[in-house]
Amino acid sequence: MANPTLLILAGDGIGPEVMEQVTRVIDWYGAKRDLAFDVEHDLVGGAAYDKHGTPLHDDTMAKALAADAVLLGAVGGPKYDELDFSLKPERGLLRLRKEMDLYSNLRPAQCFDALADFSSLKKDVVAGLDIMIVRELTSGVYFGEPRGIIEEGNERVGINTQRYTESEIERVARSAFELARRRGNKVCSMEKANVMESGVLWREVVQRVRDADYPDVELSHMYADNGAMQLVRAPKQFDVIVTDNLFGDILSDCAAMLTGSLGMLPSASLGAPNADGRPKALYEPVHGSAPDIAGQGKANPIACILSFAMALRYSFDQGDEATRLEKAVEKVLADGARTADLMGPEGGKPISTAEMGDAILAAL
Amino acid sequence: MANPTLLILAGDGIGPEVMEQVTRVIDWYGAKRDLAFDVEHDLVGGAAYDKHGTPLHDDTMAKALAADAVLLGAVGGPKYDELDFSLKPERGLLRLRKEMDLYSNLRPAQCFDALADFSSLKKDVVAGLDIMIVRELTSGVYFGEPRGIIEEGNERVGINTQRYTESEIERVARSAFELARRRGNKVCSMEKANVMESGVLWREVVQRVRDADYPDVELSHMYADNGAMQLVRAPKQFDVIVTDNLFGDILSDCAAMLTGSLGMLPSASLGAPNADGRPKALYEPVHGSAPDIAGQGKANPIACILSFAMALRYSFDQGDEATRLEKAVEKVLADGARTADLMGPEGGKPISTAEMGDAILAAL
Ligand SMILES: CC(C)[C@H](C(=O)O)[C@@H](O)C(=O)O
Ligand SMILES: CC(C)[C@H](C(=O)O)[C@@H](O)C(=O)O
Repeated sequence: MANPTLLILAGDGIGPEVMEQVTRVIDWYGAKRDLAFDVEHDLVGGAAYDKHGTPLHDDTMAKALAADAVLLGAVGGPKYDELDFSLKPERGLLRLRKEMDLYSNLRPAQCFDALADFSSLKKDVVAGLDIMIVRELTSGVYFGEPRGIIEEGNERVGINTQRYTESEIERVARSAFELARRRGNKVCSMEKANVMESGVLWREVVQRVRDADYPDVELSHMYADNGAMQLVRAPKQFDVIVTDNLFGDILSDCAAMLTGSLGMLPSASLGAPNADGRPKALYEPVHGSAPDIAGQGKANPIACILSFAMALRYSFDQGDEATRLEKAVEKVLADGARTADLMGPEGGKPISTAEMGDAILAAL
Repeated sequence: MANPTLLILAGDGIGPEVMEQVTRVIDWYGAKRDLAFDVEHDLVGGAAYDKHGTPLHDDTMAKALAADAVLLGAVGGPKYDELDFSLKPERGLLRLRKEMDLYSNLRPAQCFDALADFSSLKKDVVAGLDIMIVRELTSGVYFGEPRGIIEEGNERVGINTQRYTESEIERVARSAFELARRRGNKVCSMEKANVMESGVLWREVVQRVRDADYPDVELSHMYADNGAMQLVRAPKQFDVIVTDNLFGDILSDCAAMLTGSLGMLPSASLGAPNADGRPKALYEPVHGSAPDIAGQGKANPIACILSFAMALRYSFDQGDEATRLEKAVEKVLADGARTADLMGPEGGKPISTAEMGDAILAAL
């Protein structure tokens, strides 16, 4: 049988250097666990723009659609700030999400025991935190039409459209309920149904899906502004949170920061299952391209490595191997390995991106 | 000369009981500081719906437009959850904001020294925190057309429209820069210009206003998701934040919760100045109607009382009297007066809403 295929899009900033460590981990799985992947590399974001004049070349898009899973590093950087909207690095990522139809974005916000002190929140508020945010990723105001900047009277008007169909809401709700069943069996759905009709429909559909097919899952609803408050006040009240594209963008970043471990957090973006039962899937760290430290060997590769662990679990049905990798990461942290972003007030000498890779390979 | 006029809309839940204490403070100013107001009371939200079948009666709207300032308690409650969208309590508040054209919503997020321990954040992260969030309040996705739930094919679609004109952005930006000059002289503008064209226009206009008329004010731009992160990570980096209606809703609640003093935070919503130089204005606490504790005399009246202090400052040019009231609040807190929401782990006996009113009047 042919090896499963991985497309690696390292992207911009620290993307390439953290992805280098992931490649080593992938090689380890091929050599030691008989889990070989056929890996191809290509460009996305600013790197693709520099070479092709577009943040995602059509050939790359085709490769992404054909691959069994895509691993992405990060996109963006100040160098591209002045580019036209349609050429910005982010458009490459958004095109991948849209054309692969990756409607369910899983963003775990997990507080690692060894790092609980790093949070700006009190330790008892975040220690042991383990939330999963399910963010709708292919619709809403990110993609709704009409959009643009138009002339009206003698001034310009900026327009975007928030738009959700029942079936778009339904499928992401299902994915949240399925996930909840494998966790704490509790879903909180967030919108602004008190202000937006799209939120009214969102709330209604999520409730209907729950009542029809997931009566065993506990469902609550919360306005997104209150959601932001509750995440800061008492995040452990949540198990799975399901929300739309824009609220999910903000709330998941807020939740990620609670953990104090931004350089540690992976994400999975999943679409509908193929004929072989494998969902279309893209995995990427939650952190950005961090242009300020790019190329210096300082970046923390863990978020990107844990994104590969998510790939093992969600794309390749290798839950045990995913857990092996996650445990290896926990071990090196417990042993005190720290990249620069994990330096606490007590100080110490940070290790490099490659040294963190070494440590994780050794722990495997 | 006639007394200035105040319209009091106590609203729902704890609104009436906290407003009762504000009324005592207003009376004190009339009796002791020769600052008498002509006060009228009316209904808004669920209370208005119960009586008139609408969350804001036209007569009340007319009174609000005629008053020198409006003080609002809170709106909403579970009793009204099933009401049609257009009849929900929130629509009353939104109509006031829109028809009074209150485009600049000032939301201080301030951490009171006596209460720094109440935050879920570490004390050193929030002690001394003093941010002002300026939220655009009359446009964006809250009011944009088209909106609603429509039929398309054989399913329904929820639609809202994010929409900002250059002049809408410009006027709220000006109000942020003016405020910054009276504070730390620093503004951070937040949007999603990497994803939304309305954000591209927002960023451009804010920058243009700064360059043309406020070159002395330091301006930075941040994506709203990063903004949420930075608020959690290191909130003291901010002075004034300016953002749109929806981002402002979420980010200001997030910032408010950082302080641990939600029951303490006031807000002012200001429009364009009248002929007498007084802006159209509505003042309200940041907290909601807290239906779970309504009618029990447990609520903290401080946010509502400090909203009246903002009225003294922004509507009546009585900055010194506003400071007097704020100092009185700080004193009672320093002296240990605590309503139930301010009970820390060390325990103690909470005082009632009216007792907190007594304490503040005594301190005045
Ligand atoms: C890079 C950007 C387009 C993206 C988004 O807004 O979705 C990022 O913030 C994210 O959350 O993945
Ligand atoms: C009550 C509601 C309509 C309102 C809003 O969304 O603006 C509230 O959350 C606020 O922030 O004042």
